Amino acid sequence: MANFGFIKRQTKDFINIDPLQTGGKLTEEARKALIEWGDGYSVCDFCGGRLEEIKRPPIYNLVNEALPDFLNCDFTRLTNGAREAKFAVMHALRRDDAWVVIDSNAHYSTYVAAERAGLNIAEVPNTGYPDFEMRAEKYAETIEDTKKKGNIVLAVLTYPDGNYGNLPDAEKVSQICHEYSIPLLLNCAYAIGRMPINAKQLGADFVVGSGHKSMASAGPIGVLGFNKEYSKNLTRKSEKYKVKEVEFLGCTARGVTVMTLIASFPHLIERIKRWDEEVDKARWFSKKMEEMDIIQLGDKPHNHDLMFFESKGLYEISKKAKGGRYFLYKELKKRRIHGIKAGLTKNFKLSTYMVEKGQLEIVLGAFREIFEKYS
Amino acid sequence: MANFGFIKRQTKDFINIDPLQTGGKLTEEARKALIEWGDGYSVCDFCGGRLEEIKRPPIYNLVNEALPDFLNCDFTRLTNGAREAKFAVMHALRRDDAWVVIDSNAHYSTYVAAERAGLNIAEVPNTGYPDFEMRAEKYAETIEDTKKKGNIVLAVLTYPDGNYGNLPDAEKVSQICHEYSIPLLLNCAYAIGRMPINAKQLGADFVVGSGHKSMASAGPIGVLGFNKEYSKNLTRKSEKYKVKEVEFLGCTARGVTVMTLIASFPHLIERIKRWDEEVDKARWFSKKMEEMDIIQLGDKPHNHDLMFFESKGLYEISKKAKGGRYFLYKELKKRRIHGIKAGLTKNFKLSTYMVEKGQLEIVLGAFREIFEKYS
Repeated sequence: MANFGFIKRQTKDFINIDPLQTGGKLTEEARKALIEWGDGYSVCDFCGGRLEEIKRPPIYNLVNEALPDFLNCDFTRLTNGAREAKFAVMHALRRDDAWVVIDSNAHYSTYVAAERAGLNIAEVPNTGYPDFEMRAEKYAETIEDTKKKGNIVLAVLTYPDGNYGNLPDAEKVSQICHEYSIPLLLNCAYAIGRMPINAKQLGADFVVGSGHKSMASAGPIGVLGFNKEYSKNLTRKSEKYKVKEVEFLGCTARGVTVMTLIASFPHLIERIKRWDEEVDKARWFSKKMEEMDIIQLGDKPHNHDLMFFESKGLYEISKKAKGGRYFLYKELKKRRIHGIKAGLTKNFKLSTYMVEKGQLEIVLGAFREIFEKYS
Repeated sequence: MANFGFIKRQTKDFINIDPLQTGGKLTEEARKALIEWGDGYSVCDFCGGRLEEIKRPPIYNLVNEALPDFLNCDFTRLTNGAREAKFAVMHALRRDDAWVVIDSNAHYSTYVAAERAGLNIAEVPNTGYPDFEMRAEKYAETIEDTKKKGNIVLAVLTYPDGNYGNLPDAEKVSQICHEYSIPLLLNCAYAIGRMPINAKQLGADFVVGSGHKSMASAGPIGVLGFNKEYSKNLTRKSEKYKVKEVEFLGCTARGVTVMTLIASFPHLIERIKRWDEEVDKARWFSKKMEEMDIIQLGDKPHNHDLMFFESKGLYEISKKAKGGRYFLYKELKKRRIHGIKAGLTKNFKLSTYMVEKGQLEIVLGAFREIFEKYS
């Protein structure tokens, strides 16, 4: 049992460029909320029967006012994460032998959620190396092919995807889907809380966000926005317990996670206004990496802080270096830089979101030093 | 937006007898873990692809060693809560037009999970007022009736239930279910982390626990224990992403909640050894309440800290008192006592778990004062 109890986090004070983590770093307010509301079920002090109806603390206001406004959609619900939100939608819309159309840049959890919901999956191909672009017209082709096989109940587009950080033309994909009367779900796990997302303008019937990924919240928590057309499917009530919503098992993020989201919310509203600066910084970083022959794949110029790089140089070094393919991880760790997956050298992703330029200079300097050391 | 940001918890320093909350109060270690691991996705620093395989922090050890040992079952998984665990089991076992048999003392979320899984629900009746006992032989009757209507894929027993805190004869229910080849799920949301639970000895095929309810953890998090017979159903892998388990959408409690569970785990192992003292204290409290004509319903003598009371006296007072049926809540609030639902007087539940005897004396004194004031 020596193993358990309080455990230190090794990477806590490192420069963090892990795409999973840059947008989930807590605000000071959220850190205070953790301690204030950490005890299990603390948010239920004054519950009248359903999480989203709790007025003290103001979960009601968050779900029924602030989030619909933030996302420009009719309704929102809290979920236990983005994947749980996708599953809720797929499960609510599922029919036997039906199909879901998803982009081939989708996160694995989109695929797994569809499998769990018992849907057949048709993948829309991307353009392949080096852009991996999702083109709207490919949705039309895939839909045409798939509708011969069965009923399509949903299309999913990842906005942006978690590999290349590509932002596809969601409006155009939405138009195509709607021509076929197929609702569109936008997976915005890397967007909501980082950049402005306007569900109605993008033509999304459903939008999905992740608190721990992009909303400065402790995990797991997600948000689901949807329009009234699909509200009946999603908010179906229990036959016996009239206030409980079946698809959300009554209540979802019933704990401290929602209090960190509430604590960080004013900050999110402010930070999405500075999205252009984040994009500029990402482009600057990409340019500096390319000066070292570390090539950024995906959208170019890039429109998001999540970037995928390819480096033949680092790969060559890894063949001879002590530590083999772990050499890069070790060199970065020595410099207290966290976020590039251990063992990767040829292809890796990172995020510059909310990382100060001075810290990014240190990261760039580290790559320069590494090349010099092994040249 | 003035509404959001950091919010104080009004009841934080109150004497807390809320059944939802007494077992979820964090340990000091868990409070430290909150700050150390609060950032979103912090536990994924060294992830190889699945939450339960992470060795740093020791989630692997928790799920694959400590929890199976703690519960005496073959396998465990983390979930986003007890209801999500019940849904996972029901969803994994579901068939079209099939049935689940549940006790009529079940938590609403058991019912809602079954509805979400598309199962028909047959309820096993309790004995009614004043004991509300679940008798094992009633399972046989309900199963006999139900199997005429269709396939029964699962039986559920709540151990103890969340209304009366009754601990039914699980072994006997299990024997009956197994005679019909029906697997039994024990919902131990009010047991695991409070009292010793031995899944194999109780004859449970599945056991479900709640971190935020009874395991001194921040929410939402739950645990699911199961035996190898059902492991194939529950741990089915994605066809495309070979390490991802479909029924858990890849990963479940992927955040700070699991770190509070790990931090509190050594404490849980110790505290369940003192369960007898908790039962003695509950019985003592019940006796003192009955001296004031506040009658405890359910099992008697009682075997759990969660107790349901009936008071005709308080109900009579509420008819005339200022504040009407809210008078009791207000009187208790004035004395900084939290946990009896606002508006209740005639029937209410409370928990004495981990509440010091001195604090319970204050609660008893409060009831005495209230009776005197309004007599």
